[in-house]
Amino acid sequence: MDMPTKTDITKLRVNGQRLWDSLMELAQIGATEKGGVCRLTLTDLDKQGRDLVTRWAREAGMTVTVDKIGNVFMRRAGRSNMPPIMTGSHIDTQPTGGKFDGNYGVLAGIEVVRTLNDHGIETEAPIEVAFWTNEEGSRFVPVMMGSGVFAKAFTLEHAYAATDTEGKTVKGELARIGYIGEQEPGDHPIGAYFETHIEQGPVLEDHDKTIGVVTGVLGIRWYDCVVTGMEAHAGPTPMALRKDALQVAAKLMQEVVACAHRHPPHGRGTVGMVQVHPNSRNVIPGRVKFSIDLRNATDALCEAMDADIRAVAAKLSAESGLSIEITPVSAYPAQPFHADCIAAVQKAADTLGYSNMRAVSGAGHDAVYMARLAPAGMIFIPCKDGISHNEIEDAQPAHIEAGCNVLLQAMLERAG
Amino acid sequence: MDMPTKTDITKLRVNGQRLWDSLMELAQIGATEKGGVCRLTLTDLDKQGRDLVTRWAREAGMTVTVDKIGNVFMRRAGRSNMPPIMTGSHIDTQPTGGKFDGNYGVLAGIEVVRTLNDHGIETEAPIEVAFWTNEEGSRFVPVMMGSGVFAKAFTLEHAYAATDTEGKTVKGELARIGYIGEQEPGDHPIGAYFETHIEQGPVLEDHDKTIGVVTGVLGIRWYDCVVTGMEAHAGPTPMALRKDALQVAAKLMQEVVACAHRHPPHGRGTVGMVQVHPNSRNVIPGRVKFSIDLRNATDALCEAMDADIRAVAAKLSAESGLSIEITPVSAYPAQPFHADCIAAVQKAADTLGYSNMRAVSGAGHDAVYMARLAPAGMIFIPCKDGISHNEIEDAQPAHIEAGCNVLLQAMLERAG
Repeated sequence: MDMPTKTDITKLRVNGQRLWDSLMELAQIGATEKGGVCRLTLTDLDKQGRDLVTRWAREAGMTVTVDKIGNVFMRRAGRSNMPPIMTGSHIDTQPTGGKFDGNYGVLAGIEVVRTLNDHGIETEAPIEVAFWTNEEGSRFVPVMMGSGVFAKAFTLEHAYAATDTEGKTVKGELARIGYIGEQEPGDHPIGAYFETHIEQGPVLEDHDKTIGVVTGVLGIRWYDCVVTGMEAHAGPTPMALRKDALQVAAKLMQEVVACAHRHPPHGRGTVGMVQVHPNSRNVIPGRVKFSIDLRNATDALCEAMDADIRAVAAKLSAESGLSIEITPVSAYPAQPFHADCIAAVQKAADTLGYSNMRAVSGAGHDAVYMARLAPAGMIFIPCKDGISHNEIEDAQPAHIEAGCNVLLQAMLERAG
Repeated sequence: MDMPTKTDITKLRVNGQRLWDSLMELAQIGATEKGGVCRLTLTDLDKQGRDLVTRWAREAGMTVTVDKIGNVFMRRAGRSNMPPIMTGSHIDTQPTGGKFDGNYGVLAGIEVVRTLNDHGIETEAPIEVAFWTNEEGSRFVPVMMGSGVFAKAFTLEHAYAATDTEGKTVKGELARIGYIGEQEPGDHPIGAYFETHIEQGPVLEDHDKTIGVVTGVLGIRWYDCVVTGMEAHAGPTPMALRKDALQVAAKLMQEVVACAHRHPPHGRGTVGMVQVHPNSRNVIPGRVKFSIDLRNATDALCEAMDADIRAVAAKLSAESGLSIEITPVSAYPAQPFHADCIAAVQKAADTLGYSNMRAVSGAGHDAVYMARLAPAGMIFIPCKDGISHNEIEDAQPAHIEAGCNVLLQAMLERAG
């Protein structure tokens, strides 16, 4: 078969039904009663999932290699041996996970290859589809383990030593399921990396858009905050003589949200966890500990939010006379995606006529680590009510197909 | 010995050192390493305490009777057989209790009798000192059990059936320690009731006053409040699309305090207990449950605070679109004390030259139930830092003596 002309390539479309069917078939492995999937990393079910996806890859003519942390690379050769244009995600799930989180990104890559095969299209650069070990982090920490080792965010030994609640190690479980490969993680050049994913948030649905052109992943700052007052009996202590830690904490909790609003459009501020001491109905709280989660699109903005909330806390402490301690727990830098990759996704979405908008990712993805190694970008599609990490996670077949078409076009633009 | 003249009576003073020594001796029974007392109701230690106090009463020439709920009445005969002028409190303690809570009120009564004996003073009405079973409620609920049965706030059978964590009943434990009497609770007329007590709050200390002339006990309204939003991932969910239950709850928590300030001078509002769901660092809270404790000096003011907080909650719910449910948990009516008893305490404090102020009790006392049966009043003395229900609870010997002198004068005024 002759190469299609450039005009022909932009008319290429994936087989949405075939992609959907593959997603549903993979979702049978670890299927839950409520329609979700429980396929924790490095379990027997994960092995079944890995075996199925790699069988599909081989059936599509791809070669399969595995690295020492169990990342799997499924390669369709190019005309040249230049670094591959890669896509991928993960196939492990949360304990109460859905059918789409991660799995969609991997099977969209397989569908891109199947589509290229259908039309006999060769690319200059090889096309690779990867699935990364333990993205979810629900059985072993850290999260995004496979891509993190690959990007040298932490060492292979650190990852190997991680244990689950039963004391089983990552290394032992990788060996047990037969997915401990020979390849040194990261010893694998990449031309560019794209990842399709359900948004896991409500923005696209709210704006009624099919495609999110992801410009980057928000930086995250986590803190613990402790407000210390004086516990006292709620009855005999008049209002003027109280040192009520919860009342000061409540003000600061609202300032966490106000701080996010002061750093638009991507500033986010959340208090998710609260512990009140002694937590008794008729005792004025003497100590309140709560979490602060601040996010923004650049490290400079994260830094500005850090300074903002600390200044507000100092002011509240001075006004109330109560002590307020803010302790950093962890920080993840913001990761802007590569302008060329963003442009490729944007162009594909526009060319295909899909309604779209720029978006940021508030959650981490394997693409964050890949962006340290190569130009990277992401494609979001809506998920129902923005819900993910939940068995009721859902996405529309039309969106699934659209995101894969964007992936196809963006990869072809980079692969030549 | 001849009766002293009326002038002589106002010059009568108790023996402060003897009262202090008795307090310290009683505090040895169940003494804790940190200087507190753990003498839970109806334990072997409680029996030892009861035996010691009744021995002292008999040594002071008093007759001792016990009712079916174990309330103990120690009587010094009067010239007539009219209803006695009574004082009392309790000798059971919290698990980490102090030396003064309750015990002071009982031993101050004994000291009044000892002082009358020292001076050979007869009274027209009999003088009685009572200690009431299980005021603290830490082993068996309800609290203020003995005085509650006596005042027919609930039945003897209800009290008898209460069990501790080991399944032991009040009736069984009363019988075991030998304090289940013959007398029908409440079948015991009372002329007037006074109770001396440490304040258990910081007001007297803050105002540098020796005596609090207690005008009444605050009414209490307890509620559970549930704010329901929508839990969502803290990363992918932009501020504008959140239904953050904790942020709405934080506003309402501050309104609980504002509501107290809107109903001065005795309005009190406390949020002591908070549960956040799912209480995870990176999840926007979907549901927050918290307690509300509102208090004020009259039932009408408690009712006004109820209406106030419900109106504020309705407004917050309408503004935020989140559901707010406020459910009453329990309510205790306000209990103003009798004008004559308040006046007797006031006159005694003034005559004795003690610095004093009007005060309200924010916590419950046996006097609350007694006030349903007879004219009643209370005398507060300061406690260090307002701390009670704690092993470091402390009071000054000079205040202990002063409160007892006020009790003596107030009882003599009523007893004639």
